[in-house]
Amino acid sequence: MSLHPGVHSVSVTPFAADESLDEPALRSVVDYYVDSGVAGVLVLGVLGEADRLSDGERERVQRIAIEHVRGRVQVTVGISHPATVVTAERARAAERAGATAVMVAPPAGSTAGPALREHFRRVGDGLSIPLVVQDFPAAGGVQLPVEFLADLAHVLPPGSAIKLEDPPTAAKIERLRKAAPALPIFGGLGGTALLQELEAGSDGTMTGFALPTILVEIVEAHSGGEPERARSRFETALPLLVFEAQPVVGLGVRKEILRRRGAISDATARQVAACLDSRTLAALDSLLEIEARA
Amino acid sequence: MSLHPGVHSVSVTPFAADESLDEPALRSVVDYYVDSGVAGVLVLGVLGEADRLSDGERERVQRIAIEHVRGRVQVTVGISHPATVVTAERARAAERAGATAVMVAPPAGSTAGPALREHFRRVGDGLSIPLVVQDFPAAGGVQLPVEFLADLAHVLPPGSAIKLEDPPTAAKIERLRKAAPALPIFGGLGGTALLQELEAGSDGTMTGFALPTILVEIVEAHSGGEPERARSRFETALPLLVFEAQPVVGLGVRKEILRRRGAISDATARQVAACLDSRTLAALDSLLEIEARA
Amino acid sequence: MSLHPGVHSVSVTPFAADESLDEPALRSVVDYYVDSGVAGVLVLGVLGEADRLSDGERERVQRIAIEHVRGRVQVTVGISHPATVVTAERARAAERAGATAVMVAPPAGSTAGPALREHFRRVGDGLSIPLVVQDFPAAGGVQLPVEFLADLAHVLPPGSAIKLEDPPTAAKIERLRKAAPALPIFGGLGGTALLQELEAGSDGTMTGFALPTILVEIVEAHSGGEPERARSRFETALPLLVFEAQPVVGLGVRKEILRRRGAISDATARQVAACLDSRTLAALDSLLEIEARA
Amino acid sequence: MSLHPGVHSVSVTPFAADESLDEPALRSVVDYYVDSGVAGVLVLGVLGEADRLSDGERERVQRIAIEHVRGRVQVTVGISHPATVVTAERARAAERAGATAVMVAPPAGSTAGPALREHFRRVGDGLSIPLVVQDFPAAGGVQLPVEFLADLAHVLPPGSAIKLEDPPTAAKIERLRKAAPALPIFGGLGGTALLQELEAGSDGTMTGFALPTILVEIVEAHSGGEPERARSRFETALPLLVFEAQPVVGLGVRKEILRRRGAISDATARQVAACLDSRTLAALDSLLEIEARA
Repeated sequence: MSLHPGVHSVSVTPFAADESLDEPALRSVVDYYVDSGVAGVLVLGVLGEADRLSDGERERVQRIAIEHVRGRVQVTVGISHPATVVTAERARAAERAGATAVMVAPPAGSTAGPALREHFRRVGDGLSIPLVVQDFPAAGGVQLPVEFLADLAHVLPPGSAIKLEDPPTAAKIERLRKAAPALPIFGGLGGTALLQELEAGSDGTMTGFALPTILVEIVEAHSGGEPERARSRFETALPLLVFEAQPVVGLGVRKEILRRRGAISDATARQVAACLDSRTLAALDSLLEIEARA
Repeated sequence: MSLHPGVHSVSVTPFAADESLDEPALRSVVDYYVDSGVAGVLVLGVLGEADRLSDGERERVQRIAIEHVRGRVQVTVGISHPATVVTAERARAAERAGATAVMVAPPAGSTAGPALREHFRRVGDGLSIPLVVQDFPAAGGVQLPVEFLADLAHVLPPGSAIKLEDPPTAAKIERLRKAAPALPIFGGLGGTALLQELEAGSDGTMTGFALPTILVEIVEAHSGGEPERARSRFETALPLLVFEAQPVVGLGVRKEILRRRGAISDATARQVAACLDSRTLAALDSLLEIEARA
Repeated sequence: MSLHPGVHSVSVTPFAADESLDEPALRSVVDYYVDSGVAGVLVLGVLGEADRLSDGERERVQRIAIEHVRGRVQVTVGISHPATVVTAERARAAERAGATAVMVAPPAGSTAGPALREHFRRVGDGLSIPLVVQDFPAAGGVQLPVEFLADLAHVLPPGSAIKLEDPPTAAKIERLRKAAPALPIFGGLGGTALLQELEAGSDGTMTGFALPTILVEIVEAHSGGEPERARSRFETALPLLVFEAQPVVGLGVRKEILRRRGAISDATARQVAACLDSRTLAALDSLLEIEARA
Repeated sequence: MSLHPGVHSVSVTPFAADESLDEPALRSVVDYYVDSGVAGVLVLGVLGEADRLSDGERERVQRIAIEHVRGRVQVTVGISHPATVVTAERARAAERAGATAVMVAPPAGSTAGPALREHFRRVGDGLSIPLVVQDFPAAGGVQLPVEFLADLAHVLPPGSAIKLEDPPTAAKIERLRKAAPALPIFGGLGGTALLQELEAGSDGTMTGFALPTILVEIVEAHSGGEPERARSRFETALPLLVFEAQPVVGLGVRKEILRRRGAISDATARQVAACLDSRTLAALDSLLEIEARA
């Protein structure tokens, strides 16, 4: 099955105050995303603090999310790992668990070339679900040229896609669209360039913005032939989009918003992570108040 | 003399199509900034492609800018260099040429500590004009903790200031304000967090946003006791603020806007630099059209 | 129990040709290190491709190594992880499994400061075995000043030590020795500066050099009051020390040497990793032949 | 004229205690290199602290070195700069001043591709002297694949060469030799892999090792059909080769050796640079004493 176009929410991983995995809150936040009208949920991404989990916890998050969604929306699972064999094993485990798709970023320190192509090929080999390639140089330091991505598509399972987070994204989406017309492309980066990405031909976005109904409204206005409404909604939301996308505190801001909306019980992030300062919290108050009036 | 609070425009360096320095355009763009109502102009910053100039060209830019401004606004000159003695010599040359202040970033590869403190001390030693410390880790990779900056202020010339571009900026401004109450602090980063920076106690911004009248309106509304007007103007401008602040193409976008406004004759940037793609230009058209209606 | 001074061999993790964990070879290579006369073995370090293992495989390597060593030498286990709670859980699991000590590197992206100090404190809290802090900026990008390390020692379990791999190592060892006289310090970096490190006061080395008997000879000559013999042995070994310490191919070279010595059955490293080229293999032939005559 | 095979000494830039350029010492150190029997001298490289000089000082170093050498050996001049036009102007100035060749590293932040190829093409366009491409990823972070370098050779002036410092160097030299048989390739990296580089087919080395007579002996033994003598001399020198090639203190060590040999008057390096510690100086004493006996 291919990934649905539109908005896929990148889920946080909720923790209790003692930093243990909060399973009821995971179910609750998944419902929150589903109720926002998104096409899918992505667990175990960067925002999901996947790197801060043990393998056992990753398995629990994957299982609970898939079971709790029960097919209401699609579920993509982040499985990136430095070793090809471990990534491949995670892909098969996600497939068995019922995931719609898996997401894989290039290992840190790798470079676009035959060895990296082989990494993706082996991970996708025999897989019956799509593989989403995460092109996010800011996280792992790996640059993936358009030519590499277009060629890579030939060795991936049917329906595979790119999560394109190499800014400026709109120009790269347009070039990749030309080089590989059938390859689905999703944006990310907190949705801060969502409008330009849609105009450049993206299929939607996979991102962790904590008020996903807004993203859904923008995408639906755009695909429904109402470009002015899409632009207007995007621009009204931009202060919050930019605020959530801040480095260092972005994760904390999103967890705090989800907590205030009742989607999770505690905004705790796993250490070593930055804590929210009073200045950021005060700014958040203003932004949410204004958004409520939008 | 201290730096005036408010907006200091970081100037581009105009080039002809053959990449040679365009002196008439430099005078013209300086007028453009002055006519925008800014408190000052900053030449030879990152946006000014200072690293892409020879020393002789730097001297010409400095001289022309100062002479052409003729005291209408303040002029700060970027003088960062890997060697202490060369930076110090540049500081003296800028002082002799009539600069209001000089700006110095830590050398790439240095770390916050006694040796870096000594670098700044030697550069400022005997200097009669303020030294602006550029705290911009994304450019040079050097982290400057609040404690280091507050302590550094003790060895800098009177009136010295910080250009704080280490996001999230508002929280760091608030902490630095507490640690060094008398130290002037300016934001940067394209003005994308200008409102939060002002609310956190900044003295203004030093940035290259190509429509500085908007920044001036925001700062004046804020300092004039009209926080709602400041916020409203900030949010209306945010799509363009964010668009200009994009990596890779940001410089080209700003030069293109200045060209359309008649401030420079040619949007050429020195190679090796990215060229503007049609997708980015199309998005710029939309944004400018909307801004014209704001 | 404190770590014994001397040589602790950083173990490779042997794989079969299909990249699966080769348990018999792990037992065999552990015997090889023990028979070399080392004071200890360190499993799940960088050379051990720890980042390329699943948690389940890490647990198997830890268990097999400790069981197979059966107290003949000390066993240190690498447990670094981005999250404090997971690292702490791994520390407890290593303690229960019978490890002599655990080794922890600072999470990538962290900086020397209160939050990182708290990370180490929480990991070591209540732990009855020593914690080895790996100071290896080339791997994770984190600089740990001497002052930070000396202060950190106050919150670590008794017997805790530093694996100091921040070149130039001898000078830093001397400064740390002065700042924290009771803190054990081991070198690393392939042993390429072993002589200078011993002269500067190190307690030995923890490194993956594939012919550890040579390291043992150097350390014993040094501690036995025979500095000239230590120097002579070090200098004879230096061509091979330097050759093994090469970036990119170093791991492959060491696995190939261990294979030729019969310590492991297959030199396979997990992908994504570089493969050995014929040029490197030819150079290795020459070096081993010469070493055999030394 | 092509570059002579063999050893090209990368020269330091001597400074007085006040960090001013020491012209008499520059003449003296040039004589020292020439008297060592090298084929050439390279000024304004990384070891020459080129980045810590003003443009005026660079011009003085270039002029004095060329004039003082008076054709006794070849003189290559480092001219790397972020802008194409400035690099090209420097190339022409070096040509006019009588340089044998110029050396150019890719601008930091560039990537192997058409834009970087165009940078080198424009710098070499119309140039009558060879251009040496410095392939040194550790300095500027730019990876240059073998295919890129082999293709690049087609747009460079006749006699152009590669200074290959991307370890492991021997394997890359062999691959580049196959891909571009006529392209001269020199090693670097302090000569720590000189023997393997020669065996892989290099034309010699361009490096700053402070006792260049040793490098000359190794290269002459190798080219004279005495591989065992080459290896023996290389291995005897290795402790000092490795010691000088240390990060952070390597520059200071080399200047100190040159001072002790009477080649320069003062070992001062320009700040911000590390100072030599007593531990490093003591280790240097031992190494030089032993080398004197070799």
